[in-house]
Parts: sequence; structure tokens; C-alpha cells
Amino acid sequence: MHSGSGKPGELALLKEIRARATQLSHRGARGGLRLGIGDDCALLRVGAGEELAVTTDLSIEGRHFHLGWHSPESIGHRALARGLSDLAAMGARPVAAFLSLGLPKTLVQNEKKKWIDGFLDGFFALARAHQTPLAGGDLAESPVAVADIVLMGAVRRGKALLRSGAQPGYLIYVTGALGGAAAGLERLAELAGGGNAKSGLPHIPKRLESILAPHLFPQPRIAQGLWLAQRGLSSAAIDLSDGLSTDLGHLCQESHVAAEVDAAALPVHIGATIEQALHGGEDYELLFTAASEARVPRSIAGVPVTRIGRILRRRKGRPAVALVTADGTQALIPHGWEHFS
Amino acid sequence: MHSGSGKPGELALLKEIRARATQLSHRGARGGLRLGIGDDCALLRVGAGEELAVTTDLSIEGRHFHLGWHSPESIGHRALARGLSDLAAMGARPVAAFLSLGLPKTLVQNEKKKWIDGFLDGFFALARAHQTPLAGGDLAESPVAVADIVLMGAVRRGKALLRSGAQPGYLIYVTGALGGAAAGLERLAELAGGGNAKSGLPHIPKRLESILAPHLFPQPRIAQGLWLAQRGLSSAAIDLSDGLSTDLGHLCQESHVAAEVDAAALPVHIGATIEQALHGGEDYELLFTAASEARVPRSIAGVPVTRIGRILRRRKGRPAVALVTADGTQALIPHGWEHFS
Repeated sequence: MHSGSGKPGELALLKEIRARATQLSHRGARGGLRLGIGDDCALLRVGAGEELAVTTDLSIEGRHFHLGWHSPESIGHRALARGLSDLAAMGARPVAAFLSLGLPKTLVQNEKKKWIDGFLDGFFALARAHQTPLAGGDLAESPVAVADIVLMGAVRRGKALLRSGAQPGYLIYVTGALGGAAAGLERLAELAGGGNAKSGLPHIPKRLESILAPHLFPQPRIAQGLWLAQRGLSSAAIDLSDGLSTDLGHLCQESHVAAEVDAAALPVHIGATIEQALHGGEDYELLFTAASEARVPRSIAGVPVTRIGRILRRRKGRPAVALVTADGTQALIPHGWEHFS
Repeated sequence: MHSGSGKPGELALLKEIRARATQLSHRGARGGLRLGIGDDCALLRVGAGEELAVTTDLSIEGRHFHLGWHSPESIGHRALARGLSDLAAMGARPVAAFLSLGLPKTLVQNEKKKWIDGFLDGFFALARAHQTPLAGGDLAESPVAVADIVLMGAVRRGKALLRSGAQPGYLIYVTGALGGAAAGLERLAELAGGGNAKSGLPHIPKRLESILAPHLFPQPRIAQGLWLAQRGLSSAAIDLSDGLSTDLGHLCQESHVAAEVDAAALPVHIGATIEQALHGGEDYELLFTAASEARVPRSIAGVPVTRIGRILRRRKGRPAVALVTADGTQALIPHGWEHFS
């Protein structure tokens, strides 16, 4: 872990992060981490039969989160959840996280409870839940808040769940329910009164907490990804970060196939619309394919699994992804999740 | 590699980066990279007897670089050089780089030659020189330009050069010359007329290019770090990113020792002052220690090596790092490299 300038504020923050990271490691979340914060690099080991999965996710104020909408706990949780979800989609076991933070002075040097403490609370609570040590990162002052998260995981050689393994005739499954994050975001925007307020979080009534949870505190499907990779039951997987229509399109592109989705089969989240289930991003559920004869259970590690469609051969004139409804079949055009823009 | 939103501009940029990364891999810079851009994670392998060194470095507009001072080529080069230098300081061989880029629209959608093309030119030229494939990253729109670089390297188990291995009686060495980057930065600021101009780079006369080079295009000492780790000759190492006074202090802290530096022995860069050599950051030379009986050569892989001082026992009343001059011994207080703040 570096400190951009060695300024007093940054050094104190570095010290606090290092103390929290050490505490987490002592609780057993050490895994393959041989050397953490304090040197030029961290050092990691994985087993001889394993390979490393690596992903980076950049979260930027005003684009991926609003200081006036999201609590610091939610921002810290969401930043880490994005990276963990990428590991889940490969079927990898988390080995280490790295956190690069660019922060305005005001977020580091507040009176009372500091913003940064809340951010670290959210970050480390999720890290603990998934036994993921913080192995390093970087700190710098920045005009806007920026968090880049790097996640490294281990997976048995040749057993990673790729986007490229889907074949015609295979069936498509998703974990959990879809559209909950988009519905929660819409509700959150209403509570915040639209706009882009930088101070004063919206008051969230108790009864709305469960509706907002899929957006504020999404749960990466690490256990489900590990289960799928260990059983060798899934041929391809992707996490639903940009929305079903976009992400299924990515999977089809990398696998050189087409797909159709049964609208009636979609597990739409309570309070969400079918549009939100089809195009809303940040659900962080897993989408995976399996051969039609594979015995896919109704739930994996406590999370329901639903069959939502099938993989088809690519054919001229056939849409890459189609939606089948009672009215017939139509192209499912990726909307492209635009976050807050 | 993700694209934050799937917007047309970002998709085109993602495609260009992927094409350049693929081209680089085909030229042989593949190493342990099994799967690069295009899935949820990249996949890497290292040898059974190796461990992985990982570092992240965050570069932020206005703090680590100025759009009105630095060419995009220099910004791309410097961002990658920071990470490579951390690998060098561990004695690691580069395996893969990851690049998270947050950019204002104007830098992606320029007429004529785009800023981003220059950035990628600078980045990939240095990546090629050090056989470092680009394995992934993230893209997002951002109000200020932000680049977070992750470097992963491989090093024989137990052979990494740590900060913590310095012992009393050992001698201190540095590669190359010191203060050149700080002197170059000062000259660059004069040429840019001070201030913080966002458009129009300063005209750099031919005769000044070599004076500015240590700042604009610093050379990470990968070959020297590898040599030191392979010979097992160095007990501890750190790269000089924050300046000699700060970084030697870090090394002493992690090794629980003190140190003294002979002012007369310092290899001061042509055009630099001794103050710049002592406190100026971003030289990216290596500082390392070796037992007094070790046979340290006068140069390693073409770069001069200079003995500059010795490691001492920690003692009450003794400064952590001292400077020895003709006038006597005084404490060398870390100035803390403040970049542009």
C-alpha cells in the first residue's frame, strides 16, 4: 500500500487501513497472501494446480455512486461487491483485494464520524464475509471520490467458468431474482428528490430498507460460483452487472452463439418491473449455461436457480438475443446500463 | 476488461485497447497470461516455484500529472513506469498489467489525433520494452482523468527483495543518478509558465529534452531488480518513488534499523541539486542494501551502481536516517514528496 504524498492525513488513513487489514488477516482471512501492506508489492501464492483470476473495477463519484444518495457503508460495500461478483462469475475463491482510493480532503478530515470510516466499515464487513484479505492499494487526494478495486482469486486449472463455453441446445439459468437493484435505485432517487445533492443522505424509512437492499448492498454469488466450478456442471457463466440483455449478449458474443429468453420464466424481483429485470444492471446475480441433460438443482447454497431460456445456433436474420412472449418472439436489444449518466 | 456503460465511445475505446493488447501478446509478451481481455476476469499462471508480486498505483490529473504540462505519451508511460518500478524493487519479472481508466469525454472524442491514442502509445511502448501484456482493466467516464495501474510479477519463492531485510553493518547502494526527475519537473514548470493550464503543451526545445527525460520518461529498473534477486546478493530493496529521504526511511522502518548517507558519495544527476537528489521523488532508481563482504559490481545491466551509506543499529537519540557531510552528521528529515500539491 502506498501513500501518494506521505501527508499527515494520508499517513493516518494508511495506518488505519493497515490495522484493519491486519486484524482481518488474523481472523483467518489470509489464504494465499504471504506479504500484505508495507512493502513495494504484496506477495501471493496459489496452489500448484490452480490459476489466478484477476479483475479490476473502477467506481467514480457521480457515475457509480452519489455522495448525496449512498451512505459511505454502501459505497464501500458496492465497490468490493463488483469485484467479488467477477470472481464468482469465474468460479474463483477470493485470495486478495487491493484498493486504490482517490478522495477529496473533506471526506478524510471530517469532524465527528468520518466518511472514510463508514466506507471502510462497509468494505471490510463484506471482505470478512467472503474471507478476502486486503493486500494493498494506493491512496491519493482527488477532486472527486474514486475507488478502484482489484480482486484476485484462485481456481483449479482449466475449471474456470468462461463466457466462451456456451453451445447450441444448452439451457440458460440465473441465480436469485432480477431487477431488484434497478427498482431500488429508482426508489432511492425518489427519496433523494432527484438531483445530485452532495450533502445530507435521504431518510430511508424502515419499510423501504428491503426494497433498497439489492441496490445498496448487493450480494456477490461467490458460493454459487464455487459450487458450479467444482461440479463442472456449468459450461459458461457471466455476472449480471450491466443487465441481462447486455450481459447475455456478451456471453453469446464470446461463445459465438445466439440465445432466447422466456419472458414468463424470468424471476422478477418483488417490486421490480419486467423491464428492470431485462435491462437493469447491478443485480450481480450469475447467469450460466448447462447441457440440457445436466441436473441443475433448484437452489445452490440457499439461493434459488431459475431456467430462463436456451442457447441457439447463430443464424443470419436471427437476433443475437431474443425474447419470447405470448405475443411471439422479438429481438432483445441491449439497453446498456448507463449507471447515473 | 469492462466498459463502464457500454456507451459507443467507450466500446470503441475498449475495442482499440483490446486490439493493441492482442497485438502485444502475439509479439511474445504473453508470459503467464492464459486469458486476457474479454471475460469476467483474466486468468494467469505462474510456475510452481514462484510467487506473485502485486502492486497498484493511482495517477490523478492535477496531482500526478497536468494535461497542460505532460504529453499524453508521457502520462501513459509514467503511469505504467510507477507500477513496473514496484516490481523491480521486489526483483520480480512482469507477468501482466491491468489498466483502469477514468476519462473526461473530451479526451476520448477529440478530432485529429486523439489524446487517448497518445496515452496508449506511451503505455504500450513501455509495456513492449518490458514484455508486459495488458490483461484487463476497466473504463469509465470521469470529471478528471484517472489511471489506476495494477502490475503483477513473478518471483522465485522466498527470493523477493523485501524492505525488511536490512541489517546493521550492511552497505547502502543506489542505481543510476538521483534528482533528475525533480530537476526536470522544475524545468517543465518554468516552460509551462507555472499555473495549471489545461490546453497547449509547453514547447520543449531540443536541447532540453535530455534534462526533462528523467521526469517525462523515467526508466523502471526491472533488469537490475531481476539481477539482484537472482544473485541473492541484496538483503533489502525499495524503489525511489517518493525521494531518497522518504524511501530510505520506509526501508529503515520495516527493517527496524537506522541509516546514514554520505552526502559526498551521492550520484547527483546532471543539472540537479543535492536537495533534489535527497528529497526529489519519481527517480524510480533502486535503493538496496548488501552485506559489507558482498561483491556488488560497479554497474548492473548497463546502469551504474553507487555505494551511498550504511545501515546502523537503532539507538535512542540517533536519527532514523542521518546525512554525513564535511560539517558533521545531521538528521535527514523526510520531506515527503508532494507531487503537484
